[in-house]
Amino acid sequence: MDLRGPFSATCPTRELLDQLADKWSMLVMMAVSGGPIRFNALKRTVEGISQKVLTQTVRRLEYNGFLTRTVYPTVPVTVEYNITPLGASLVELIEPLREWAIANIAEVQRAREAGNNRV
Amino acid sequence: MDLRGPFSATCPTRELLDQLADKWSMLVMMAVSGGPIRFNALKRTVEGISQKVLTQTVRRLEYNGFLTRTVYPTVPVTVEYNITPLGASLVELIEPLREWAIANIAEVQRAREAGNNRV
Repeated sequence: MDLRGPFSATCPTRELLDQLADKWSMLVMMAVSGGPIRFNALKRTVEGISQKVLTQTVRRLEYNGFLTRTVYPTVPVTVEYNITPLGASLVELIEPLREWAIANIAEVQRAREAGNNRV
Repeated sequence: MDLRGPFSATCPTRELLDQLADKWSMLVMMAVSGGPIRFNALKRTVEGISQKVLTQTVRRLEYNGFLTRTVYPTVPVTVEYNITPLGASLVELIEPLREWAIANIAEVQRAREAGNNRV
């Protein structure tokens, strides 16, 4: 383990941080952490996410062990997502970021208006 | 303010979350929060970041009010970055994500090996 963690380009935590630091992953994980949720409900909750991106996102989150995907043999098939304990421990850290964004958006907007550099 | 915050596609917090949820922004902010730091030291600390991406990242962080850029009229010019109180309040939430990645990379790797879906 590289003690510098994600500051090191070659530490596996760099790639992991890259996967965590993604708005869609964060929003999907927070939505799933509210309880079992189906694909279509997830798509409605995370407004504006495309079918393709949601599919890729849940697949990557499942691959990383953050959520489970259960298929029920109904007609049509029902797919339900659940958060794992590992995913829940991560949501505990992500939820404050969402709250921070809501609490501080006004101050960020003031900084943007006051600044003279634009991006 | 949209009470759903970043779950809403049109809430300004969605775009803000998108800017926060970026590994380069997170790493740069953590590096700057350690004290005043110059561009080249920042580039060495955040290993693997390109000159272009670092330039864009510090510009966006400055635009959002997370750090300040001070230019000293030395020859050659010295540029120093400092975290703002707003940026420091955000680093307090990001630092645990870095620690989480280091603490949980082994479990994530086990999940990846155990799973049968690949991304």
